[in-house]
Amino acid sequence: MRYLADVNEGDQIVDIYLCAEKQVLKTRAGKSYYSVRLQDKTGVGDGKIWDLNDGINSFGTGDYIKVDATVVSFQGSIQYNIKRVRVAQEGEYDPKDYIPATEYNVEEMYKEFVGYIEDMDDPWLKQLATNFFVEDKAFAKSFKAHTAAKTVHHAYMGGLLEHTLYMLRLCDFMTKQYPVLNKSILFSGCMFHDIGKLKELSEFPIIEYTDEGQLIGHIIIGIEWLSKKIDEIPKFPPTLANLLKHMIIAHHGELEYGSPKKPELIEAIALHYIDNMDAKMKTFTTLMNASSEQDDWLGYQRMFESNLRRTRY
Amino acid sequence: MRYLADVNEGDQIVDIYLCAEKQVLKTRAGKSYYSVRLQDKTGVGDGKIWDLNDGINSFGTGDYIKVDATVVSFQGSIQYNIKRVRVAQEGEYDPKDYIPATEYNVEEMYKEFVGYIEDMDDPWLKQLATNFFVEDKAFAKSFKAHTAAKTVHHAYMGGLLEHTLYMLRLCDFMTKQYPVLNKSILFSGCMFHDIGKLKELSEFPIIEYTDEGQLIGHIIIGIEWLSKKIDEIPKFPPTLANLLKHMIIAHHGELEYGSPKKPELIEAIALHYIDNMDAKMKTFTTLMNASSEQDDWLGYQRMFESNLRRTRY
Amino acid sequence: MRYLADVNEGDQIVDIYLCAEKQVLKTRAGKSYYSVRLQDKTGVGDGKIWDLNDGINSFGTGDYIKVDATVVSFQGSIQYNIKRVRVAQEGEYDPKDYIPATEYNVEEMYKEFVGYIEDMDDPWLKQLATNFFVEDKAFAKSFKAHTAAKTVHHAYMGGLLEHTLYMLRLCDFMTKQYPVLNKSILFSGCMFHDIGKLKELSEFPIIEYTDEGQLIGHIIIGIEWLSKKIDEIPKFPPTLANLLKHMIIAHHGELEYGSPKKPELIEAIALHYIDNMDAKMKTFTTLMNASSEQDDWLGYQRMFESNLRRTRY
Amino acid sequence: MRYLADVNEGDQIVDIYLCAEKQVLKTRAGKSYYSVRLQDKTGVGDGKIWDLNDGINSFGTGDYIKVDATVVSFQGSIQYNIKRVRVAQEGEYDPKDYIPATEYNVEEMYKEFVGYIEDMDDPWLKQLATNFFVEDKAFAKSFKAHTAAKTVHHAYMGGLLEHTLYMLRLCDFMTKQYPVLNKSILFSGCMFHDIGKLKELSEFPIIEYTDEGQLIGHIIIGIEWLSKKIDEIPKFPPTLANLLKHMIIAHHGELEYGSPKKPELIEAIALHYIDNMDAKMKTFTTLMNASSEQDDWLGYQRMFESNLRRTRY
Amino acid sequence: MRYLADVNEGDQIVDIYLCAEKQVLKTRAGKSYYSVRLQDKTGVGDGKIWDLNDGINSFGTGDYIKVDATVVSFQGSIQYNIKRVRVAQEGEYDPKDYIPATEYNVEEMYKEFVGYIEDMDDPWLKQLATNFFVEDKAFAKSFKAHTAAKTVHHAYMGGLLEHTLYMLRLCDFMTKQYPVLNKSILFSGCMFHDIGKLKELSEFPIIEYTDEGQLIGHIIIGIEWLSKKIDEIPKFPPTLANLLKHMIIAHHGELEYGSPKKPELIEAIALHYIDNMDAKMKTFTTLMNASSEQDDWLGYQRMFESNLRRTRY
Amino acid sequence: MRYLADVNEGDQIVDIYLCAEKQVLKTRAGKSYYSVRLQDKTGVGDGKIWDLNDGINSFGTGDYIKVDATVVSFQGSIQYNIKRVRVAQEGEYDPKDYIPATEYNVEEMYKEFVGYIEDMDDPWLKQLATNFFVEDKAFAKSFKAHTAAKTVHHAYMGGLLEHTLYMLRLCDFMTKQYPVLNKSILFSGCMFHDIGKLKELSEFPIIEYTDEGQLIGHIIIGIEWLSKKIDEIPKFPPTLANLLKHMIIAHHGELEYGSPKKPELIEAIALHYIDNMDAKMKTFTTLMNASSEQDDWLGYQRMFESNLRRTRY
Repeated sequence: MRYLADVNEGDQIVDIYLCAEKQVLKTRAGKSYYSVRLQDKTGVGDGKIWDLNDGINSFGTGDYIKVDATVVSFQGSIQYNIKRVRVAQEGEYDPKDYIPATEYNVEEMYKEFVGYIEDMDDPWLKQLATNFFVEDKAFAKSFKAHTAAKTVHHAYMGGLLEHTLYMLRLCDFMTKQYPVLNKSILFSGCMFHDIGKLKELSEFPIIEYTDEGQLIGHIIIGIEWLSKKIDEIPKFPPTLANLLKHMIIAHHGELEYGSPKKPELIEAIALHYIDNMDAKMKTFTTLMNASSEQDDWLGYQRMFESNLRRTRY
Repeated sequence: MRYLADVNEGDQIVDIYLCAEKQVLKTRAGKSYYSVRLQDKTGVGDGKIWDLNDGINSFGTGDYIKVDATVVSFQGSIQYNIKRVRVAQEGEYDPKDYIPATEYNVEEMYKEFVGYIEDMDDPWLKQLATNFFVEDKAFAKSFKAHTAAKTVHHAYMGGLLEHTLYMLRLCDFMTKQYPVLNKSILFSGCMFHDIGKLKELSEFPIIEYTDEGQLIGHIIIGIEWLSKKIDEIPKFPPTLANLLKHMIIAHHGELEYGSPKKPELIEAIALHYIDNMDAKMKTFTTLMNASSEQDDWLGYQRMFESNLRRTRY
Repeated sequence: MRYLADVNEGDQIVDIYLCAEKQVLKTRAGKSYYSVRLQDKTGVGDGKIWDLNDGINSFGTGDYIKVDATVVSFQGSIQYNIKRVRVAQEGEYDPKDYIPATEYNVEEMYKEFVGYIEDMDDPWLKQLATNFFVEDKAFAKSFKAHTAAKTVHHAYMGGLLEHTLYMLRLCDFMTKQYPVLNKSILFSGCMFHDIGKLKELSEFPIIEYTDEGQLIGHIIIGIEWLSKKIDEIPKFPPTLANLLKHMIIAHHGELEYGSPKKPELIEAIALHYIDNMDAKMKTFTTLMNASSEQDDWLGYQRMFESNLRRTRY
Repeated sequence: MRYLADVNEGDQIVDIYLCAEKQVLKTRAGKSYYSVRLQDKTGVGDGKIWDLNDGINSFGTGDYIKVDATVVSFQGSIQYNIKRVRVAQEGEYDPKDYIPATEYNVEEMYKEFVGYIEDMDDPWLKQLATNFFVEDKAFAKSFKAHTAAKTVHHAYMGGLLEHTLYMLRLCDFMTKQYPVLNKSILFSGCMFHDIGKLKELSEFPIIEYTDEGQLIGHIIIGIEWLSKKIDEIPKFPPTLANLLKHMIIAHHGELEYGSPKKPELIEAIALHYIDNMDAKMKTFTTLMNASSEQDDWLGYQRMFESNLRRTRY
Repeated sequence: MRYLADVNEGDQIVDIYLCAEKQVLKTRAGKSYYSVRLQDKTGVGDGKIWDLNDGINSFGTGDYIKVDATVVSFQGSIQYNIKRVRVAQEGEYDPKDYIPATEYNVEEMYKEFVGYIEDMDDPWLKQLATNFFVEDKAFAKSFKAHTAAKTVHHAYMGGLLEHTLYMLRLCDFMTKQYPVLNKSILFSGCMFHDIGKLKELSEFPIIEYTDEGQLIGHIIIGIEWLSKKIDEIPKFPPTLANLLKHMIIAHHGELEYGSPKKPELIEAIALHYIDNMDAKMKTFTTLMNASSEQDDWLGYQRMFESNLRRTRY
Repeated sequence: MRYLADVNEGDQIVDIYLCAEKQVLKTRAGKSYYSVRLQDKTGVGDGKIWDLNDGINSFGTGDYIKVDATVVSFQGSIQYNIKRVRVAQEGEYDPKDYIPATEYNVEEMYKEFVGYIEDMDDPWLKQLATNFFVEDKAFAKSFKAHTAAKTVHHAYMGGLLEHTLYMLRLCDFMTKQYPVLNKSILFSGCMFHDIGKLKELSEFPIIEYTDEGQLIGHIIIGIEWLSKKIDEIPKFPPTLANLLKHMIIAHHGELEYGSPKKPELIEAIALHYIDNMDAKMKTFTTLMNASSEQDDWLGYQRMFESNLRRTRY
C-alpha cells in the first residue's frame, strides 16, 4: 500500500486508510463539507470532501475507508481532496498497517512476564497476579494489546506490556542488589502500576482519553479494579492489600504528578525510579529516532527541560 | 471530676483519666518505668510511674484508669507521679468527660442532614445517599460520632457531621444563587467528600492515623467505599458514578494537596471552595478561642501563613 | 442592524459600527492605508481602508462610524474592505448595540445593593458607604455602569455592580452562618474591594488598562480614594479605617496575586474566598456558553489549570 | 553605667535601665509576679520581681527604671532578681545609653541628603521633596531619628536616613553611568521609598510593628502620605504623580515580597537593585561584626540562604 | 551599500551580504533548492535559490556572497529570489558592515580596563589579571572583540568588554562606599566572571552556542581556564585561588540560574548585583530603542516579567 | 574497649577515645575550661574538663586521648567529667574502633571496580580511568578509604567506593537492557562522578567540609581534577572530554541541586537516576536500622518528604 509518509503534492491516490476522525463543517459561504483525519501506521493526513456527491458513501470515525483523492498543498501542508469514498470490507486491508506496534514478539514478552509471577514468594500476591494476568483471558488479551501512553513513550500496540516487562527486569536486578527489597511487593506493584490505563485510554486504532480517564485517572481506576479482585480472594490479608495499593497510588512519586501519597515504602520508592527510568530511556530513544541522523543536537525538549544531544564524538 | 486543665503543682489527685498512651522505658541507670499520657476532654497530662510496686495494676493504652498521683513540676511542665493505678470499670466514669464533642445537638444536625438527601432531584444519587447515611445504621452511627480531623478544625466528636452540614448549607445557598450548579451532584459530592476519614482516623477517644489512612488516605478509601456501594445498585449510570467520584477525588483542589485530579466540573470547583471556607472559618474561630482574650493579635499562624488579628476597634 | 457575528464572506454591508481602534500603516510598497477595529456588542471585525479617496471622511478611535464595505476572506479570516466611511451622528445609532451589558436590571440591583448598606450596624462604615454609593452621584453612576474586568468574568456594562452584589449575598449568608464575622466590616470590605477598577480600566465602549491602572493598580487606587473620603468624615476611628483598608489590600489573598498583605482578619479571609467563588462560577458559566453545546468537554482552560467538563450524563 | 553586656552571674547591680516590656504573670502555685525586659544600647536582660513588696514602686513599659537586683543563672541564662525598683527621673540617665544609633553624624548626613534634593531638575518633584524633608519640621525630625528596620539591617536610630543616603549616592553614580535614567524620578523615588516605616514601626527606644504597620504595611502607608501631600501642590502633573507612586509601590521588586506591581520603569528597576544592594552590604557587615573574629565561616544565614565566609586568606 | 533594513518589496538588489546559514532543501515536488540566511549589521533576510543554474557558484555558511536578487513578498514577509551568486573577495566588502558593534571606542575602553588592573592591591591577583588581559595577546584580542551574549544585552562586537568595564566602574564606586569590600577580589572576580563566554559562544560574524558551551557552559569553562593559568604562577596561594573561583562560580546568584554555589562572600554578593544591574540597564535601553518612539508602553517583556514603560510625562 | 554507646550514668571510665573537637571556653564566672567531643565508631560523647590541673596533659583535635572520667547526667544528657587526660600512643588503640566502615571487603570491591574499567570499549576513557584509579596509587588509596557523604548515606570509610561500585553494577545492567547507552561514557561518568568529594570532605576520622569544599564544591573540584589529567593524555579527543565533563556536571539532575547544567545526554540522565536510586536505597536502609525494630512506622523523614514504613504484614 501507499503509506501516508510517502505521499507527495500532486499525487493521485486510491487506497485504504483508517478514518481517525470525521467532522461535518460549513464553508463561510454556508456550504457543508467533510473534514476527515486519515491514519496509517506511518502518520496522519488531512482530508477534505468538498463536494458531497454520489461517490461519497456513508462512513464514520473508526471505519477503514477506501479513498480516491488528489494530493494538493494548502498553506504549506499536504491536503487530500477526496472525490470518492466508501467503507472498506474486512479482508481488503490488514489492520497492522494502520497502527504502530512494539518491535518485540508479544507472546514471548508475555511468557517472560508470567515467569516473574511464578517467581514471587508471597502466595496471596502470586494468586492475585495469576487471577488478573493469566486466568482473566479478556484482561490478559487487553493488557497485551494496549499502549502505555497517548503519546511520548511506548505509544503503540503492546507498549504497556513492553514497558511493564522492562521495568520487571529492572525490579529483578534491584531485588538481587538490595535484598532489603520485598520481591513480591515490588514485582506485583510493578505489574499492576499502570493497569488503569486499559480504561483511561481507548483502544487502538484510535487512542484518546476516555471520559472515565479524564474524570478519574488511571491510578484510581487501577485501585478500584484491584480492590474488587482482592475482595474475591477469601482472607486476603488487609494490610497486604493496603501495601499493594500504596505501590500503585504512589508510583508517580510526587503529589504534583498526581500521586495522592508520596512513596512510604522502600519498594514504592524503587518502583517510582524504575518507572521513570524506563520511560526516560524510551522517550530519549524515540526522540533520537525521530530527528535527523546528521544532527548532534535534538533541540530543546520540554519533557526533559533540556536541549538534548546524541552521544557521539 | 478534677479536670486536667485545672490541676496545679503540689496537688494530690485521685481520679479517673483515659490512658491515651503507655510506654515502657528505662532510666539511664537501667531501671524500668512507665510513661503514660493521661487525657480528658480538657487536655492531656504527662504521667510517670517510677516504682512498679504492688499498687500498679495491669493496664494499657485506651483504658480508663484510676490514678493516685502527686503533681510535680519538671523543667517547667506539670508531671504526675503516679503511685497507684488500676483500670476503672464501666459506670465509674462518663466517657463524655474524656473526649471533646461538638457544641451542637447531633440528632438535630443529622435530621437536617437527611433533609438535604430528600431535597436531591436525582433518584440514583438520592438512593446512594440513603443507602449510606440512612439505611446503613453502622455507617450512620459512625458518621455521626467521628471527628473531621486529627487536629486543626472540627477535631472533636460529631465534628465530621457538623463540618459536612455547614458545607451543605453553603451548597444549598450556592445552588440557589447559581442555578447552573447541579444540586444533586453538589449535595452528594459534599456528603461523601470526607467519608474516608471514618477509616483514615481511628475513633475516639484516641485519634490517630490508621495504617490504612497513612498508606492509602481518605480520598482513596472513600472512593473504594463508594465504588462498592454503587455496584450494589443495579443499573447505576456509569457516567454519573464517574462524575460523583470526581467530586471526591478533586475536592482538595490541587494536586499538591493530594487530589489526583484538579476540579473539572463547576460543582467540583464550588465544593473545593466551600470545604476550604468552612474549614478556615472554624480554624480561625478555634484559634481566637484558644488565645488570650486581651490580645488583638494572635501571632503568626502557619496554616494561614499570616499573623492573625481579632476584628475589633 | 446587521451584527458582526452574522456577517459572511461576500456580503456587502452599509451599517454603523464603533471604531475601537484606528491605525495608519504602510504597505511594503510604501502606500498609506488605515487599519480599523470595528466593534458591536456581538464581537469585533478587522477593517481595511486601502484607498484614501474622497469617500473616506475624517474619523478616529471611539467614533461611531457608518461604513460601506465588502466582506472578503484573507488567510482564513473575515476582512472588511471599506470603500466609504463617515462619522455617524447621535440618534443614528443606539449605543446599547455596541457594548455588552449585564442581563439583570441595573436599578433593581442597585436598590438591593443599597439595602445592604442600610443593613450594616457600624455607623461609621454605613456613613462611608452612603457617602460613596448614594450621595456621590457621579461615583454611583460610574459604579453602576462599569465592568468588573477587561476580559474573563463580568466583562460587560454593569458587571462590577453585578459581581459586587452577588458577593454581598454570599457575605450575607456567611454572617448568618458564622456569627463570629463582623457584618459591617465584611459588607463594606466587599462593597469597596474593586472600586479602584473604575480608574484602572477605561469606560465603555472601549475597555483598556489606563496609564494609572498599569502603574498603580486597582488596589492602591481604591485605597487612595477610600483614604481621602475617610478623611472627610470627622473623627472616623483610625483603627476602623485600618481594618477596612486591610480588607481591600488583602482581597487577592496572596502576595503573588498582587495583595501587599495576606489576609489577617477572618472577614478578609472570607472576602477573598467569596470574591474567588463568584468569579469562578461566572467564568465557568461564560466558558460553557461560549463553547459548542454538543461537546461535554470544554478543553484545557488556563485560568482553571484544568480540562473542564459540562455536568451531564 | 554598667551595661547589660558586661554583667556576670553573681553580680549585684543598682542602675537604671529601660523597661522594654512588663508582664504580670502567675507562678504555678498561683502567686503573682512581674516579668520585665530590661534594655540598654548593648542588649536586653530578663528581670523577675518575685516579691511584690514595698520596695516595688509603680512602673510600666517604656519607663526608665532604677533597679536593685541580684544576677543569677537560670537554665543557662542570666536572670535579674529585682528586689527594689522605681521610675527614674529625667536627668538621672542619658537616653542615648539605651538605644543603638548610627555611627555617622546625623546632621551631616541630613545636609548631604538635602543636597540631593537641590540637585533634582524636575520642579514638581523638588518641591514635593522640599515640602516633606525640609519644610515639614516634624517629619524631618522623625525621618532623621528613625530606624530602617525592626532587625536585620540599619536597625538603629538614624538608620533610615543612613540607608536612604547611601542609596542616594548609588543613585547619583547610576545616573552618571546610565544617562537614560531620569535623575529626578530616581532620586525622589529613593527618598520616599521607605517613609511609610515612620508609621509602620514604633519609635525608639522600643521598636515594634504598629497596628497600622501590620494591617497596611509601609508601602501603602507611604503612598497615602505621598498622595495627600501631592494634592496640596496645585497642578502637580497627575502622570508624574503616578510615576512616582509606582517607584514606591514597586521597590520590593517582586509581588511575593509585597510589591503590588513589578517594576515597569527603568528607574524602578534601578531603585530595587540599589535598595537590595545597600541592605545586603549592611547586613553582611553586621553579621561579620556579630560573629567571632577568629572564625572564617559565619555559618548558614537564612537571609542569604547561604553559609557566609569572611574574605581573607 | 544597501542595508537589509532598507530593502522594500519589488526592489532589485546586487550587493554583498554575509551568508549566515545555507541549507539544501527539496520542494514537495522533489526538486532541490537552497535556502540562505543573509545578514548585515542591520538585520537578516530570507533568501531562496530556486534554480541551481550556471549563475549559482559554490559558497557556504560564513562566506560573504555577492547576490543578484529580486525582492518579493511571501506570506507577509520579504523574500530574496536569488538569480546569481558568487563568493566575494576580501577588499570588496568591509566586515564592519556585517556585524553590530559597540558604540564606544574599544581601545579606550581597554585602556580604562587595564587601569583597574593596575589599581588592584593584591600582587597575585594583579599578576593573574595581567597574564590574561595584557600579556596573553590572543586572549586580549579575543576579549576585546567578543559579544557578552547571544541575544538580549551587549550582543555585539566589543559587548563583553563594554559590559565588564561598566561593571568595573560600579565595583570601583562600591569599594569606595563600602570599605569592607576587598577591592582586588571584587575587581578580579568582575574581570574574569564571563571569560568562559569566549568559548561558549562562537565568534562574529555568526554567534552560536558551541558544543562545549552547551555541554559545559561558560562558568565551568572559565573555571578550567583560570585554574590552569593559576597553576602557572608559582606559589599562588590556594585559598586565594578558591576565593576567586568562588566569585566566578557564584556570579549568577542562584542555583536555578546555573551557579553551582550561592554567593558566600560579600564581594560575590556585590558582583552578582552589579552584573545584574548593568545587564538590566542595557536590556531596558535596548528594548526602548527597538520600540516605536511614540508609544509610552513597550509591552510585556518576559525577561522583566513585566509590562515596561518609558519614563516621560 | 568500652564503647560510648554502652556507657551509663554513674560509670567510671578509663579508656581511649578520639578527640573530635576541642574548645577552650569560659564559665560565666570567668574561669577557663575545655569542652571536648569524644568519638568512637558507635557514636560521640560530650566531655568537660572543668579543672585544668596537672593531670590534664596537652592534646588537640584529632588526637586519640586516654581519659579518666566520671559519667554524669546534665539536663537529660550524658556528660563526661574528665579528671585526667593524655594523648595515647600508636599501638595503644586500633583506629578501626573509632571510625565507622563499610561492611564489605574493600579490596574485593576494588577488584570488581577495576574489572569495570577493563570492560570499557573506548581506549581514551579506559586510559583515563586507569591513570586515576590504578596508576595513581595515592588517589586509589584515598578513593578506597573515603566516605560518600558527611551524613545521610554511605557516611563511612569505604563508602565512596561502595556507592560507586553499586552504581556501576546498575550501569552494567542498564547498558545491557538499553543498548543505545554508550557503555564507556556511562561507566566512566559513574566512576568519576563524586571524586571531588575526596577534597570536599576531610578524611576520617573527622569528616568536615573543607574550605575548598564549601567555596567550590565537589562537582567543580572533580572537573578541575579531570581536566588536568585529561591534558596529560596527548590527543585526548576534546569532544569526548566535553561529554565526560558533562556527565559529572549534570549528575545532580537539576540546577537547584547544584548541577550547572541539566542532563543533555541519555547516559547523563541514566547516571542521575542510578545515583539517586542507590543513595535512596541506602538511606532508607540506614533509617530502618537506626529505628526501633518493633515499630512499623519510621516517622516523617525530611529527605524523603514522607512518613516511611517498614514493609511487613
